[in-house]
Parts: sequence; structure tokens; C-alpha cells
Amino acid sequence: MPYGFHNKMLRVNLSTHEIALDEPGEEFFRTYLGGWGVIGHYLLKELVPGVDPLGPDNLLIFAPGVVTGAPVGGSGRHAVGAKSPLTGGFAASEAGGFWGAELKRAGWDGIVISGQAEEPVYLWIKDDHVEIRDASHLWGKKTADVEATLRKELGDERVRVAQCGLAGESRVRFASVMHDVNRAAGRTGLGAVMGSKSLKAVAVRGSGQVEVADRDKVRTVARWLRDHFMESGYLRGIHNDGTAGILISLDVRGGLPTRNFQQGSFDGAETITGETMTESILVERDTCFACPIYCKRCVEAAQPYQVDPVYGGPEYETVAALGSCCGVDDLEAIAYGNQLCNAYGLDTISTGVVIAWAMECFERGLLTPVDTGGLDLRFGDAAVMLGLIEQIANRQGFGNLLAEGCLRAAQEIGRGTERYAMQVKGQEIPLHEPRIKFGLDIGYATSPTGADHMHNVHDTALAREGAPIQNMRSLGILQPVAADYLGPEKVRLFKYRQAWRMLDNCLTLCMMMRDIFGADHICNLVQGVTGWNSSMFELMKVSERALAMAQAFNYREGFRPKDDVAHWRFSTPFEDGPAAGVRVPHEEIQRAIQLYYEMNGWDSDTGAPTAATLHELGLHWVAELLYE
Amino acid sequence: MPYGFHNKMLRVNLSTHEIALDEPGEEFFRTYLGGWGVIGHYLLKELVPGVDPLGPDNLLIFAPGVVTGAPVGGSGRHAVGAKSPLTGGFAASEAGGFWGAELKRAGWDGIVISGQAEEPVYLWIKDDHVEIRDASHLWGKKTADVEATLRKELGDERVRVAQCGLAGESRVRFASVMHDVNRAAGRTGLGAVMGSKSLKAVAVRGSGQVEVADRDKVRTVARWLRDHFMESGYLRGIHNDGTAGILISLDVRGGLPTRNFQQGSFDGAETITGETMTESILVERDTCFACPIYCKRCVEAAQPYQVDPVYGGPEYETVAALGSCCGVDDLEAIAYGNQLCNAYGLDTISTGVVIAWAMECFERGLLTPVDTGGLDLRFGDAAVMLGLIEQIANRQGFGNLLAEGCLRAAQEIGRGTERYAMQVKGQEIPLHEPRIKFGLDIGYATSPTGADHMHNVHDTALAREGAPIQNMRSLGILQPVAADYLGPEKVRLFKYRQAWRMLDNCLTLCMMMRDIFGADHICNLVQGVTGWNSSMFELMKVSERALAMAQAFNYREGFRPKDDVAHWRFSTPFEDGPAAGVRVPHEEIQRAIQLYYEMNGWDSDTGAPTAATLHELGLHWVAELLYE
Repeated sequence: MPYGFHNKMLRVNLSTHEIALDEPGEEFFRTYLGGWGVIGHYLLKELVPGVDPLGPDNLLIFAPGVVTGAPVGGSGRHAVGAKSPLTGGFAASEAGGFWGAELKRAGWDGIVISGQAEEPVYLWIKDDHVEIRDASHLWGKKTADVEATLRKELGDERVRVAQCGLAGESRVRFASVMHDVNRAAGRTGLGAVMGSKSLKAVAVRGSGQVEVADRDKVRTVARWLRDHFMESGYLRGIHNDGTAGILISLDVRGGLPTRNFQQGSFDGAETITGETMTESILVERDTCFACPIYCKRCVEAAQPYQVDPVYGGPEYETVAALGSCCGVDDLEAIAYGNQLCNAYGLDTISTGVVIAWAMECFERGLLTPVDTGGLDLRFGDAAVMLGLIEQIANRQGFGNLLAEGCLRAAQEIGRGTERYAMQVKGQEIPLHEPRIKFGLDIGYATSPTGADHMHNVHDTALAREGAPIQNMRSLGILQPVAADYLGPEKVRLFKYRQAWRMLDNCLTLCMMMRDIFGADHICNLVQGVTGWNSSMFELMKVSERALAMAQAFNYREGFRPKDDVAHWRFSTPFEDGPAAGVRVPHEEIQRAIQLYYEMNGWDSDTGAPTAATLHELGLHWVAELLYE
Repeated sequence: MPYGFHNKMLRVNLSTHEIALDEPGEEFFRTYLGGWGVIGHYLLKELVPGVDPLGPDNLLIFAPGVVTGAPVGGSGRHAVGAKSPLTGGFAASEAGGFWGAELKRAGWDGIVISGQAEEPVYLWIKDDHVEIRDASHLWGKKTADVEATLRKELGDERVRVAQCGLAGESRVRFASVMHDVNRAAGRTGLGAVMGSKSLKAVAVRGSGQVEVADRDKVRTVARWLRDHFMESGYLRGIHNDGTAGILISLDVRGGLPTRNFQQGSFDGAETITGETMTESILVERDTCFACPIYCKRCVEAAQPYQVDPVYGGPEYETVAALGSCCGVDDLEAIAYGNQLCNAYGLDTISTGVVIAWAMECFERGLLTPVDTGGLDLRFGDAAVMLGLIEQIANRQGFGNLLAEGCLRAAQEIGRGTERYAMQVKGQEIPLHEPRIKFGLDIGYATSPTGADHMHNVHDTALAREGAPIQNMRSLGILQPVAADYLGPEKVRLFKYRQAWRMLDNCLTLCMMMRDIFGADHICNLVQGVTGWNSSMFELMKVSERALAMAQAFNYREGFRPKDDVAHWRFSTPFEDGPAAGVRVPHEEIQRAIQLYYEMNGWDSDTGAPTAATLHELGLHWVAELLYE
């Protein structure tokens, strides 16, 4: 019997209500692992180029990886994928929690959903039992209510629920797919794809196990992580204060995105950082499947913002997006905004950055109350920020425009507002500042998912402080690379780090482990779970393969190098703050992007992976698809 | 203190008699490991393009690797390098035995020799003591005599000797550097470089150890090898019957190079194969430093050929080169030929193939007794074959022409003889037949060292028999590739296998271990010896780096893709034998070569690694060298 996978991909056609089984075989799982790899494979093989992302011909794919559900910290993740309604290109986003592990325990390696239901439905998976059920009573409900209702009607409190939320129903282009109420596959608008299929939820319950090939080997990795994670300053930090614990250090360095990235430090940073959260509204530390780290928050507040811990608590991205980026220094308001986004299924990053765009445009006089339905949009106004979240999710008033994402909204409005839309390929830029993380722009500009931090975060701080971190050494990067530098060494470092991250997105393993897992941990984990003799070379090639497939998909959808442009704002210096004067020279970053293309074996003219690159990755079928 | 290396490269200038020390640092050793990597580094950094390979400005480099001298089978190797007098390009060749380990035990990581002595000298290294000594009494002597003399005059029977032999003194362009009398760094004419420097020998004795970081980890690998190697059919075979044990299987498949590659099977194969050797002239199995496999032979014969076991016994390459390739079916004559080559320091491959070329030309009437000094050159004439070895080593008569290698000889003679010169870039083709090993031609045509098997052998048989071997699976090649196929899957397989081999040539680890060592063994060995956290990804990149440096060196010396051409003969089918009718279609192999270029990131027009490729490998300095 196979280990780490079941050789069972569930196929559901919501138009015909057909339920079927793919058994792609061991080679498939070893070649793609899961996550991005599996999503890329299905999208390239089955999607007709130019398909409407919100039409019946798009696929919605739930893709855990081979380590998902194995008894080791970091394995409680999966990816969701489709063609993106936000970018028009490759969409994938990952979520933690328990849903992915539960799907594996139910005996499934993933779900590929096609078609479109005529009436709202949900999918109920109990081990081999798969059923499409009426969801009209769930439509329009908040995520916590949906989960509670489903658990009740399915008679099992341990049912795990993935759902699209009201925002997905409304086809907000940056709607998320929510899991366990507070774990979002947030980016690239996958919730809208789910909503467009009238698929309200996927409820899962499994009674099995993820069988692993070598229990001792897996246990050794799991115990090592448990016993050592507190030695990592980063992991200790996120355990203590959540991911928002990093906020204050970014502010100190002048790289906390503030007021739509106009500034890099924020007066109110102290009041919204993770440490403050710990000391004020935190009621519980939460964690994902099998994970000892407990980086998740549960927060609670009463007046004026009724915050329910069932919706968890804000991550760093959320605090920065709804907080500093909107100029809001009220942590309880941010926590409430986080609750709204989780309840409605909105990506907190895009939500915050879209609102911040509107605020900047308003303050510059490019938007007026005539546009905003009378709203006075000012940075720092928490009530307006929260009101806009409601409007976006419900597609009401000005929120109906913002629900299109800042690029489309700006194109609709005109008047030069596009200049202030902090986006690449239509996706809002996450809350990491290239002016203190030189090279990150390469990822924002080139990522197949648009501006994205899930495979691009670039911790130059670590490199700058003398010793390159151990996992980069295990890949052969032996020298620290200066922070304020964009030359070839930086591009190489960026490429290797990105590949490491992308591997996490295939396995699918939590990226937080990067700070402590070396190549040996990853290899031992994969070997222990699957029984394969995989080397880090093989695994890095899976990662390169996944990226190449996503890039090939975008090429086929018409993306070209002209779409891979760094945002102009990062080439202008901050006027004040600790990073005052620092800019990412535009010509240098574009040169770096060009070099990154060539290092990846992507054609400089078309942006597509060359035939040779695809063949070298074993993607012979993609080479045929693109070049024959 | 460092493990696996001493951070001490010995520099010797024979023109000035200066002796100096390079301390290149840990990053250097981790980046290049040894062997090809170190040779490529020094040649690119220090050689002026266009330098005369036999002049004082060439370098001669002895380069063990980080695992050389560690207590594990396969670690008794090192590489020798220079600019080649045979090809005019990058030269490197590896040898087993004990010399490399002894150099490491003496506290040195390698020797870089420049200049040219006015009178014959030898180098005496006893730990830190390094001395250039007069060698006039050794000049012209046979290798066994030189070794015995040196041991006597140095008063230590355990002195290990590298030497150039009479052929090197005569600057035979395919002279080898001999170690322990019978371990040859045979290819690319390194003996001639040594001879041109009037450096007769390098005698070494060390009293130290190669300190390893984790003795248990190294011991575990060593014991595993000792306990399991007999489970490998290949290793059991070479233990029992030496490398020549494979000869009969090649004959059976119709791929034993016979009569200058005109045929693929040989009537006398049974009489010259390793099993016959075991049953007749074998007197002892020999082995290299720390190695449990004992694949080396010591053979003995009396009349008519006085064969002394001190010269070891013929490897497969030698038996095929002097035997089937020359049509000779007399094993004792072949053993005697092997002895002559080892005594004079001649590469047995080039020697046999040069003679076979002359025989074919003679039989075709392109050479006549006027050219050969009256010799009647016929395939199968052992006496003529042996006589020509003497002539070549002494540069006497017709042998003086053959000593130039078959390409230069043919160009001198003209009359269409070049057509029958089995060579690429001037180096004679080793005794592996692309018509049964589809894809091997890619290596023959493109290798920076000219036709070479030490990083190119392509065991399609293994792939053909259903299961790709385990070490290729650990790199992610999961499917067997059909033997008679030259498409993208084969090119990818070739590239990965070549990279694995090239890693052996950097580490420097015996390539025989490839059949049983997986990626984990290699990683554990490197980690255990050095204490680094190296992954297989890092190690494969070292290998790619070494190949890219050699390729860059050749580009700088004027080599271009037009020089990378598969031999026409392999595109013509055998007329009879088990592989009758099989040919390697010329257009297909050239297409495969083109794809291989692109997979490597080499420019199709110039053949040079692109700047992006060099940067991706961390070879920023080579990118500057070539492109700035």
C-alpha cells in the first residue's frame, strides 16, 4: 500500500452531479507532491485557455500534499487552486488548521471540482461516502454559523468545514476560502470561484489515518521540532505573540507598510503589535494539526467591537493591512475587522490594501464623496475601514467597486487612481516592504499569482546579520548577501529561497518551519512519510516544476514579461522614518527580474519556460502543450 | 579545526623553485569540494588563454577531494588536471590507489605546480617538509624502478609515488600520470604536462590522519558499504573478475568495440574477458585505500610475455583497447601491453585506439609500409600492437607519429585517414559503444575533456530492464527510459547521471560506488567527513559548477559548438553481430546535444555557459571573466 497518499483524487462535477475517482498513481504523487504541483498539473491539463474564472469551466482544486496529516508539526496545511478571478492567471493559496489533514484521514488526496451547481450545495465527505447536498439554508450565513449548522446536521462535532463565505457568494474577486472558520486560503480570489460554483462548503470527516512508511523516522522529526522550536527566536516569537509579533521590528526598521505604503513606520505601531495583543485581547493560543508551535491567536473584545474568539485573531498581515496600511491604530477595531473578514470570507490583505488605496485616492482628491456614496475616507478612521469591509462583502455601495480589487476599481474610476493601486497583476501587495527587503520585488513582480508573499518573503535581515541561515547553507549559499544590494548574488539567493518556499507549498508543509528545518529534516520527513528515497535535489526539482507549471499556465493565458513589473512606489524613497531615503532603483530591479528569468530558464521575450527547461524538469507533456 | 580538508594547497613553481602555500578557506572547499572543481577554479583564475600546454605557463594540479583519505571505501582517489596537450582544452583525469589519501595524510589538500624545471626534478613531501630534489637518476626509468628507487633513497617503503613515466618525458600527447605504478590518471595527456615540466615524480608520505567531523556517521557508511556491496551484481562482478568482467556481456549485446569500432562483437571475446583472467593469469585481487571491493587485478605471466604483478592487471578499458579494438585475442599479450603502458606511463585507451586507427587505415590501404617504417599493420597481430607501444613511448619510428594522437597523426598523413580516427576534440574514444548505449554520444561529443567515459557512462541496460536504478530515483527520475531512444527523457537522464558522476570527480569518490550508494549515502558521507549540513541539492550544484567551469575554460580557449560533434561511425549500422542494423541517427544525436546545451544553460551559439547560468551556480567571478 502507498504511504503518504491514497492514490485517490475525488472528482466532482457540480453541473452534472457526477462524482468520480482519479487514481493518478505513485509517480504522479512523487512528481508533484501536492499543493501547487497538483494544482498546476490539473489546470494545465484540463483548463481551456481563456476560460472565465467565474464560469462553470473553471476548476476548483483542494490539494493537500504528501505530508499533510502526518503526525508532525507543520503538516496541517493544504492548498486551494483555480484560475484566478482577481488576476486572470494561476491561482493558489494555502491554509492551515485541520481541514486538509481531515481530508487525508478520510482517504482522499485532493478534490477537483468542475461545473456549477444550479442551487447552493455543499459537499459532504465521510470517508468513502461522498454526497452533494442542498445548501440553501446556509447561503448568506456567516462562517461560524455555517460550521455550527453543518456539525449539528451531520451529527458530528468534529466535522471540518471549508467554505466560501458571503464574499465568495458575492463573487468578491478577493474572497477567500475559509477553513475551521479562521484559517483562510486567502489570496487570488478562490472564494469567488467557490461561490460561482454555488458550492457553499465542503464538510469532511475521516476515520482513518495517514499511514506513514517509517514511524520512527517521522517521530524523530516531530520530536526534534517539539523539543527545539523554542530555540528559534522567530518561532519563539510567533508562539508568544503570534505572527503580529514581528510588526514592531518592521516598524523600527522603517519597513512597516503604512498609509498605503506611503510610509514605512507608523506612530501607532506599539498599540497594534503582537505583544500588545498578548497583553490585552488574547484569550488563547491556538494551533494547527499536530503542531507544537501554537502561533495562532484567539482574541476577545466587548464594547464597542464584539469580538468572538471563534474567529481566531489577526495575523501580522491582517494587523498591518487593516491597521498601519489604513492608518488605524486601534487593535480592537483591527480584531473586529479580522472577524468580519473571517466571517464573510474576505482576504484580509486585499481588503486592507483596497481600502488603503481608496483612502489615499480620497486624500489626494482623486476620489470624492460622490464616488464613495458620501463616505469620507481618511486614513486612521477605523469606523470607515470596518464599514467598507461590510460593504465589500455585501457588494453594497462603494464596496461593490472595491470588491473588484484595486486595479479594476482604479481602471473603472480613472483619474490617475491606478497609480496608487498597490498591486501586481491585479492582486494587492502583501504587507512586506521591498525598501527594507531588497529583492522581494522580484517575487512581487514575477509571481504567477500576482503580488504574493507565500513563496517570496525574503528575510534579508537574517542574511545581513552575518551568517546566512542554515537551510540556505544546506543548499550551498554560503555567504551573507548585503541587504541593500540587487545584484546577481541577491537574485540567486532569492531564487533558492523561493524554491524552498515553493516546496513547502507542494508538500504542503507550513512555511514557518523554514526557520528551523534544514534540508535533512525535510528529506527525513518526506522519506519517513512516503518511503521514497527522495533527496533534496529531487524535492527542489518538484518545487521548480510547480513554479514552471504555474508560469506556463500564465503564458498560455496571455501573460508576458511586460506584466512582470515592480511597483513604482518602491523606487521612490521614504521621506522620513528609519528607512528614509532608501529606494529600490527601478532599473536595477527590472535587471534583477531579467536575470531571475534567465536563471529559471524562462524565455526573456515570452516569459514562458523554454522547452529545454520543461524537459529538464521532466515536464515533457507541458513542453508539448506549449511548443507543439 | 576544519574537517575533511586542511586549508592547505601547496604551490610549487619549478622555474623559480619557489614553494608557497594557498589557504583558500572553508568556503572554497565547500564550493568546489576538490577534483574537477578545484582544477577548474585554478585553470580559469590563473591560466592565460592560449597558453602552450607543454610550456612553462601551464599548471599541473593534483586535486584530491574532501572525502579523499576518509576511512570509507571509494575515498582513495584524486584528480589531476591541466590544460590538455591532447585536446588543447580542459584536462582532468582521476586515479585510485593510495597516493591521494597519502597527500591528505601529509596535510595537503592539493598541489598546484607551475613553471618548468631546467633539469629533471622530483618533489618530496613528508608532512610539512616539501623539497624539490634532483631526478636525473630517475629520468628514462620505468615506473616500478622509479618507485623502488625513491622508496629506497627516501628510506621509507610506504612512500607513495606519482610519476610521469618515459611517455610523459617524451611528451606523448596521451601520456598518463601514474600512481602506485599501476593506477593511472590516464586521459587528456597529463603525463606529458608533467614531463614538460621536467617533474619526474611526486613522492609523498604523511604521518597524519584525515580528521572527520562525525566518526560514527562515516563509519556507518563505511560499514554499510562493506556489508552490502556484494548484493550489487555489478560490484560483485568487478570484485570477482575485475572491471574486465563486463566485457563478455558487452560482446553478447553486440557492443564490444572491435577492430577500431568497425564491429560490436569479437570472436575472441571469451578468451580475453575478466572471467578468463580470473581463471588464468590472476594471482591477486588488489584494492585502493580503505576499499572493501578489491576490483583491481594483479596478473602474472611468463613466456612469451614476462608479466610482473607489480604492474597490476588490465582494466576493462585496457582489455578492450589493446584487445578487441586491435583485434587481439591473446590475454597474456594484452596483459603485457598493459604492463608496458603502466611502465611507460601511457593511457591504455588512447594507445589502443591510436593503434587500431593505424591498423584500419593500413588495411584500407591508406597507410603503407612506407609510412609505418615497414611494419605490416593488421588487426589481431599482438606483436605489432606491443611493438607500437614501445615505439610510441620512446617516440621511435612510426610510433613518433602515433604519439601525437590519432587526430594529429591523421592530419599529418592526410589521404582521408582522419575519417577513421575514433576521437572527439583530439581525444580517443573510450571503449563504450553508443550503438548499444544510446545517449552516450552526447557525452563523447560535448565533454570538455574530449571523448571521455569518466563522467559519461550511460548504463541504459539498467534503465531498460524495467526499474531505473535507485540513485536516479533519488534525483527524481522515476521512469525507465527506452534504450533505443534519443528524445528529451534520455537527454534529461543523461544530464542527471553525468552530474552524479561529475560529483564523484569533485568529491573525489570512486565512481564504482554509484551502483550502490544513493543520495543519502553521499550526503551522510560528506556531512560526516566535513561537518557541513550539505544537501544533495548543494552537492549536485557543485557538480554542475565544475562542469560549467570546464566548459567556460574551453570557450575561452576557442572551443565552440562546432567542436561538439558525434562521431559519424556511430550513425552507421553494424553489418552483423547482435546489434546489427542499429545506428545512432546523426541528426537525432545532434538534436539531443542541442537540447543538452539548453538544459545546461549553455549558449547555443557560443557553447559558453550564459552569465545567468554562471550566476545561478554562484560563479559570479566566471561570469565577470567571460562577459565583462
